[in-house]
Amino acid sequence: MERFSYQNGQNQTLFQQMSVDKQNKFLQSLKQDYRQIILSYFTSPNVKFEIDEFTDKVFSSNIPVPQVIQIHLELIEDFSKQLKLEGRSEEILLDYRLTLIEILAHLCEMYRCHPSNYAAIG
Amino acid sequence: MERFSYQNGQNQTLFQQMSVDKQNKFLQSLKQDYRQIILSYFTSPNVKFEIDEFTDKVFSSNIPVPQVIQIHLELIEDFSKQLKLEGRSEEILLDYRLTLIEILAHLCEMYRCHPSNYAAIG
Repeated sequence: MERFSYQNGQNQTLFQQMSVDKQNKFLQSLKQDYRQIILSYFTSPNVKFEIDEFTDKVFSSNIPVPQVIQIHLELIEDFSKQLKLEGRSEEILLDYRLTLIEILAHLCEMYRCHPSNYAAIG
Repeated sequence: MERFSYQNGQNQTLFQQMSVDKQNKFLQSLKQDYRQIILSYFTSPNVKFEIDEFTDKVFSSNIPVPQVIQIHLELIEDFSKQLKLEGRSEEILLDYRLTLIEILAHLCEMYRCHPSNYAAIG
């Protein structure tokens, strides 16, 4: 039987219960969201809301944290290739570690303060 | 009534139930541990064990994540002052964001997979 999260009033399917195809689509959607967060991280005051939405999605789908790290690494690699092609410095990419730190800290507090009853699913 | 964690077989008092004096001593002890982790992060193969011990202490005391971030920031500031006094570049300090990312990711997975029953204590 499929289980749902109780957060946000949404019926968010758990990552562990999605088909491989659905998992891939969900990860792609998260990657797009995260890309947008990185692009606006140092410029948009609205990025806090985007981070809230992103962490809500990650939290309510109970997605393993290494997957979030993987999304970050893949995006940084994409940006790195782009900057190299344009002959620009990659130094800015180090600053996006702050984005990941903020997201992980936010997510960690969500899991610490609102434990789910499906944590054992892994 | 004091409540204890059930992790590691230790009777670890929750941070929220410590006196202010005990909280300060505990934070100082964590800061010393974290300082050691940073100093050996890129050189010692044993740092993984030190990170495990540190995250176990943070997890089992249910300490809020912003306190961990604060410990990181204070240490980086200490190191920054030291490097300035020695006329050395502070560039290395950016790399220690990786240490914080690893610790937060580790901690986040602990809270995600092993929710406590005292999370609501906050």
